[in-house]
Order: sequence, then structure tokens, then C-alpha cells
Amino acid sequence: MNTDQSNFFDSVCKQARRAALLQSAAETLEWDERTGMPPKASEYRAQQISTLNAMVHELRTDETYGENLESLSQQIDTSQPNDIAATVRGLTRDWRRNRKLPTDLVKRISTARVRGQQVWDESRRADDFAIFAPVLKEMVSLQRESGDRMAEGTDRDAYGALLDTYEPDAKTAELQQVFDELRTPLVQLIAEIRDAPRQPKIEILERDFPVDAQKRFSRWVAEQIGFDFQRGRLDETSHPFCTTLGPHDCRILSRYESNWLPGGLFGTMHEAGHGMYEQGLRTDDWFGLPPGSYGSLGIHESQSRLWENQIGRSRSFWRWLYPHAQNYFSSSLSGVDPEDFFFAINTIRPSLIRVEADEATYNLHILIRFDLEQALINGTLSVADLPEAWNERYRSDLGITPPSDADGVLQDVHWSAGLFGYFPTYTLGNVISAQLHDAAAEQLGDLDAMFAQGNFQPLLQWLRENVHTHGQCLSQTDLVKQTTGASLSATSLIEYLRSKLRPLYGLTG
Amino acid sequence: MNTDQSNFFDSVCKQARRAALLQSAAETLEWDERTGMPPKASEYRAQQISTLNAMVHELRTDETYGENLESLSQQIDTSQPNDIAATVRGLTRDWRRNRKLPTDLVKRISTARVRGQQVWDESRRADDFAIFAPVLKEMVSLQRESGDRMAEGTDRDAYGALLDTYEPDAKTAELQQVFDELRTPLVQLIAEIRDAPRQPKIEILERDFPVDAQKRFSRWVAEQIGFDFQRGRLDETSHPFCTTLGPHDCRILSRYESNWLPGGLFGTMHEAGHGMYEQGLRTDDWFGLPPGSYGSLGIHESQSRLWENQIGRSRSFWRWLYPHAQNYFSSSLSGVDPEDFFFAINTIRPSLIRVEADEATYNLHILIRFDLEQALINGTLSVADLPEAWNERYRSDLGITPPSDADGVLQDVHWSAGLFGYFPTYTLGNVISAQLHDAAAEQLGDLDAMFAQGNFQPLLQWLRENVHTHGQCLSQTDLVKQTTGASLSATSLIEYLRSKLRPLYGLTG
Repeated sequence: MNTDQSNFFDSVCKQARRAALLQSAAETLEWDERTGMPPKASEYRAQQISTLNAMVHELRTDETYGENLESLSQQIDTSQPNDIAATVRGLTRDWRRNRKLPTDLVKRISTARVRGQQVWDESRRADDFAIFAPVLKEMVSLQRESGDRMAEGTDRDAYGALLDTYEPDAKTAELQQVFDELRTPLVQLIAEIRDAPRQPKIEILERDFPVDAQKRFSRWVAEQIGFDFQRGRLDETSHPFCTTLGPHDCRILSRYESNWLPGGLFGTMHEAGHGMYEQGLRTDDWFGLPPGSYGSLGIHESQSRLWENQIGRSRSFWRWLYPHAQNYFSSSLSGVDPEDFFFAINTIRPSLIRVEADEATYNLHILIRFDLEQALINGTLSVADLPEAWNERYRSDLGITPPSDADGVLQDVHWSAGLFGYFPTYTLGNVISAQLHDAAAEQLGDLDAMFAQGNFQPLLQWLRENVHTHGQCLSQTDLVKQTTGASLSATSLIEYLRSKLRPLYGLTG
Repeated sequence: MNTDQSNFFDSVCKQARRAALLQSAAETLEWDERTGMPPKASEYRAQQISTLNAMVHELRTDETYGENLESLSQQIDTSQPNDIAATVRGLTRDWRRNRKLPTDLVKRISTARVRGQQVWDESRRADDFAIFAPVLKEMVSLQRESGDRMAEGTDRDAYGALLDTYEPDAKTAELQQVFDELRTPLVQLIAEIRDAPRQPKIEILERDFPVDAQKRFSRWVAEQIGFDFQRGRLDETSHPFCTTLGPHDCRILSRYESNWLPGGLFGTMHEAGHGMYEQGLRTDDWFGLPPGSYGSLGIHESQSRLWENQIGRSRSFWRWLYPHAQNYFSSSLSGVDPEDFFFAINTIRPSLIRVEADEATYNLHILIRFDLEQALINGTLSVADLPEAWNERYRSDLGITPPSDADGVLQDVHWSAGLFGYFPTYTLGNVISAQLHDAAAEQLGDLDAMFAQGNFQPLLQWLRENVHTHGQCLSQTDLVKQTTGASLSATSLIEYLRSKLRPLYGLTG
């Protein structure tokens, strides 16, 4: 860069860093809200957060800031995978998208989100979709408008533009193709398992597992796999999540039930996977800027799923962990055969609720939502017809009929919060996690032998170098290609599930 | 107010509320920092807090804001005790004070505070005053400059102006007079107690009191005396404090040691006293504005001391609480005579460390600091001579010689943080708490009978109406006069201590 370019670059970075600082302050307030803020504090807390967010929005849509970015975009080859190019590319992209949305629309969406979540909650409690229908209809229309505007001047349609918000550069058709690849073998595998000769003894996991012991156990496991507690912490909340409050401050949150061991443990491993990704970003130099920010939600989810499932539900992992688990939960696990335990945590069973689903059927829940939300945004499905379409798909894909809308179409908060194009990133994460696991195994040798000894450092290091460090310098597509040598594909996931689950369930051939 | 005045008034209130909102966000970040933030997050956290504080400062020193305030000040009778007058008076006062301090001086003080606390910490660990001396010297000079500037155009000297920061409208000479009133009877009482025929069995309090039980007990007591957990919470930290993060969000923090029961319990009652004051302010309408803000540090401390000492160390309170305490700590307290327990928590014994001092000797610690910090600011005592002056006063006033500077002149963080004029508010709080207690007893009847039944509602209600609700509408002087019918005076405090302690220690006559 010449001196002028350098000055522009420094100026936009400074502004983006300031926006990130204020945003991280707002996120700290949100973390506090979700970990124990006094009940009556919520109204003012909402004001604090929205004031900070408005400041962030102002900084990110500022005219001079945008002009500097546009000028840099013209002078620099932003297609390069280096930090400067990624910074200009990412910031310009965000600025342009923000600029396409009129302030009035942003405000209407923001209001509709707050109202939407309230009414959704009410509607779900009353088990009455009719209460939610009008606000969902408005939200669909606002999201369509927002998608249409963001799509202007691109080759995307409205849904594609919404998807692009969460999964930059991903195309609807490409995802559709990968999901189609996944659907048939998955449905087949799940059907086989349903009628399999062996079935797990799930009651092992429903015994008494004192919450205090679960907390200590989960924390210890998170530490062992590599979550850095000098740069993060683990807390309790009602809806687990992971949030980053600074370059060296990543908070993960989990939830524990005394009669269900997998919830707290795998929830913690899932969030620790997200957390280790955040801790592996180059935040020292690039916090709040594209090189130091996560690549996409799909990549993020690949990290959580890798630790939760590929590792957390593997036999080799439990070869190491099981004796420790027996120490923590001696009264419930003493005398339980390790193989029975391992089988139980790999229970596959179609169920109603996405967030409680196992790692195989989970994807069917997502595929349903992906199809339905596209149809809603494209206008081929009306909100009035949504519950019937939902139930129909649950019958055909999972073989179960939701007994009520509360446990059916009303189960997720996402659409009420305006999150259209978000769901597919969950299954995308599963797909990528399996591809990454295969690539790591190929390059690092016997991963199972390492896990059986509680040695996760080589894998974590590999993820640091091949995934985390890139931030937004590589798109999801390029990251998968560069790291695995192949394009996005469902093959690894299908193979992973088949090869682990079929023998467990006594399926041969 | 006419329309113009109304518009000005709305505009300054809006700006002050915005400043309060950003400040409360910064304080939330600080609360988080002191309750469990990951160790490596501190550098960025400091940036977040200072960025928010800089925004607050900008809002509060804004030119137009000040002009509006000045114009209102000329048009409204600000001597009235009503909300509008108090708002204009308080905001104008703050604006003028801020304006008198050049930005450069504010920055130098801010840097010196950070550096001062670091070097103080280092110096105390090394037990070497020489390390701290140069930064303290600089801090004294900065504070003197700041005091001089704030004193310009007033009848105050530099120290008086610093005092005014924490205790608005209080005069050094008036405090000096009340403290002088207090000194001789206090020194005499403490000497009598030292040689008294009966002495407490303090080991009762040094038995094993499991920290978990202490936490539950302290929380329960805080709830019983009236701290509202719907609008606040209680946490653990290394240096207990109370902070308000919104109109309905007051956080109190305490600390527990397994072999010292009084620390955690009375620490919690102390902070709950602060917290109940904050919860009694009219924050619904006036959060962040003078009518909804605490009157002075002295008033604040009167509330914490009232609950900690006048109530928490009274016989009637323990008539109610002791059986509960025996339930919480059955192994350590079963068989302990209530009277022995009560005597033990009223142990009076000169000691080195202010924060560990009992309610009588505590004031002597403050009187020493009050005299020494005045001499430092006035230039009649040099920093080089401070340790000797400190030790000399401990010998003469408390009869003990600090064995080291670490446990002597280096024990408090205050001066390193630039807090000159702050110490006297502690004893002022003790003085006021005794006056308020007497007034409440006179107006409410038999307080002891109420406490003996665990009934604190009448007293809390009286404090709400007579103290809390006034916010900054009444100065400390006016508040004491209006509520107690008398001027500030040490008589109540002396009488309270003598009448409780002399019989306990078997002193007659």
C-alpha cells in the first residue's frame, strides 16, 4: 500500500475496532442478562444494549468510512487471501449490505424481532399458532424485503441474500445439492436403526447425576480438550451459547439436568468447540476485523460438532474418559459396562424436538426447516399453510406426527427473531465437521490412539493451523477445499455415521 | 417552567440520562471484571471501560449542555428542595466542576491513578514505601492542582474542594469539629475497654464456618432485612463493594473466610445497607439524575453502618437471629451461650488494619487519615515524612506501632487512586447512622422489640421516607437537620457506643 492507502486502511480499521469494542460491551451486558441479572433489570438492560448497538450501527454505516472502503476496494486486489485484502473485502461487504437497508426497514425489523419473540413465546405457551401467525407473516414479508434489497445488483434471490448473511458466499443451490446427497442415505440409515436387532439401554443415562458433579465433570472435560480458562469461562444458563467479549475473553454456557447426563456434558463440549475456535482466531492483532473473526456460521458449527460428536461420541474418547466419569458418578455408573454406556450415548431415535435430537436425525430437522423457510421467503408457501406443511414433512421424513404446534412448528425461536437462512448452517456444520475429521485423521495418523490417551493437543493444533487462524481470509468454500482437498460433500458425514452406528446396532452387510 | 425552560430542561435531562446509561454500562463491565472475568481479559476490558467513560465525560462537558444548564440556573430558584431545582443545581454543579479541570489535567490524573495503583500494589508487596513515594508525590501535587482549580471562585481551599467531590457542601472545619468532639470520649472508652474486667471469648468466631453455609446464611439475612433480590444480587469478590447498574439492578458483593464468621456476615449486611439505599432511590423517574441519585458518600455510609452495626451488632437483633445462626452452623455454635456470642461480635481492640477494625476503633483510623491527607494537600507534610507521621499517630491514638509500612501507611488503596477527601466520609457515616438510629427510635417506638422478632420493615420504611427518597434534593446537612431535628453531632455515636459497650465489658459508673 502507498501512504494514502495506508492512511485510509488505518482509518477504517480504527473505526471498525471501535465498533467492535462497543459491540463487545453490548455482548457483555447480554451475557450478564443471561447468567443471572436480577429479573426486574431487564427493561433498562434492553435500553443499554440497544443504545450501544445503535452506536455500532452508526459507526458501520458512516459515510466517510464507506467512501474510504470503496476507494480501497478499487485500489487493492481484494480477491487475495491475505489479511489486508480480507479486511477490505469483509468490511466493504458489510458496509454495502448495511447501506442497502434503509434505516426505516432496519428499525421495523428490529421492532418486529422484539415483538416477534414475545408473541412467539406467548403463542407457544398457549399452543396456538394463530396467535403467532400475523407477526410471522409480517416478519416473512420484512425479511423478503430485506433479502430483495440485499440481493440487488447480485446474482442472488432474496433467500440467497439472507443465507449470505450467515454463510458468506454460500449458494442456495450448492447447499441444496449437498443436503439432497445426505437425505436418502440418512433416511435409510435411520430406518435400518429403528428396526435393528440391538438397541441401546438408554436408562443408564437417566439415572441420578448430581448437577454439581456434572458441572465439575464438564468443566474438567472442557479443560482437557483444550478450552483455555485463562481466556474464557464456563457458566450456566437456560439456553446454552458461546459469546466472545474481547480478544481474550470467550464465555461458554451450558445447562444441566440431574436425570440426563448427555445434555450437560455434550452441551459443554459443543460450546467448548465453538469457544476453542474463537480462542484460536488471531485476536491479538485482528480482534473485530475480518482476519480475526470467524469465517461463517457453518465453519463455527463444524468446530462445535467435531468436538461434540466426532470426538465426544467416539469409542476411543470414552476409552480414556469412562474411568473418570465413573469416579465423578460412582453411584450411577459403577458396574455399568463401558460398551453399554457407549451404545447409550449413541442412541439414534426420531424425535419431535430439534435441540434434543441425536446427531443423525438432527439433520432431517434442519432439512425440513431449510425447505420450508425457502418456500416462505419465495412466497410458494403461505404462513397459514405452514403448520400443515410442517407436520406433513415430519410424518414423511421422521415418521412422527407432532401432537401439537407447540412441539411442532412453534418449537424454534429463530423465525420469530427474523433468522431466515440460519438453519442450514447447522447441518452445513455437521457436513464440514466430518470432512475435517477425515482430513485430520489422514494427516495426523491414528487420532483414535491419541483420544484414547486423552491427548487432544495434536488435533487442536491442526484445527488452529488449518481452520482457526484463517478467520475470514478464506471463504468457507476455499477453506474446505484447501484443508480437505475436496469440495463440500456429504460423503464423509454419511460414512462416519454408517461406520459407527451400523455395527453398534448389530447391522451387517 | 415556561416552554423554553421546559425544552432546555428536557434536553439536559436527556443528555444526563444518556451519560448515566453509558456509565452504568461501564460499571457493568467493571462488576464483571471483579466477579470472575478471565485473567487474560483485563487489558481489553480496561479499553472498553475507558472508551465508555470518555464518552460519558464528553457528554457531561459538552458546550451546549452547559449553556442550557447555565441558562436554567439563572431562571430557576435552585435553592428549593424540589426535583427540578435539585436537577438543575446538581447537574450545573457537576458541569462547572468538570469545566474547571483542563482535559490535560484530567488525563494526567487518570494515567497517574492507573500507575499509582500498580506501583502502590508493588510497593506494598515489597513492603517498601520508597517505591511508592515518587508516584504518591506526583498524585498529591495533581490532586492539589485539581483542588485549587475546583476551589477557584468559591470560599474553599484545595482540600475543601476535594472533600466537596464526595460530600457535597460539607465543610472541612465542620467535619473537624465533629471529629474533635468524637476523639477524646472515643480514646477514653477504648482505653477503659482495654483494661476492663470482662473480655470477650473471640475464639467462638474463629471456629469452622463452612463458606457455603456462610453464603446461604448471609444471603438469607440480607433478604430478611429487606434487600430486594428481584432488583439486585449478591456475589463474591476479593474487595466487597456495592454498585448500581440500572434503575432496578443493584449488585452487592461480599467475601467469606471459613475461620472468621463476622467478615462475611457483617460485610454482607454492610453492603446490603448500601444496596437498600440505592433500591430506595426514586430511580423509576430519576435514574441518573440528582433526585434519583445518592446524596453523598457520608449518607451512603450511614446506611451501610446502620445495618451493619446499630442493628447487626445489637442484642435484640441476635435475639432473633441467633437460633437461625445455630441452625446454619450447628457444629460450631451448638452449646455456645448467646450472650458469649453477642459479646464476641462486639470485641473492641485497637488493631493495625482499618478494614478489619471494630466499630469503635475504626473511627480513630479515619481521624488519622483525615489529618494526614489535609497536611499532604496543604503542603505542611511532605510525602517523605508521611510514614513517620503515620506511625507516630498510630502510637499516640491507638497505642500500637505498625511493624511495617505494608501494614501501616501502605495499607489503603485510596491515595494511590487519587482519593483525597474520601476517608472522612466513612466516619461521617458512622456519626450520621447513630443520629438516624436515635431519630428512628424516637419516632417508631421500640425498635428493639421489632428486631427481636425479625421485623425490619418499619425501620426500612422510615429510612425510605426520611432518607432514600430525597436523593440529592436535600444536602447532607439539611437531611440530618430535617430528619433528626439536630445538626451533625458526635453525641449519638458516643452515647450509642458507651451504652452498649461499657456494660458488656463490666464497666460501671
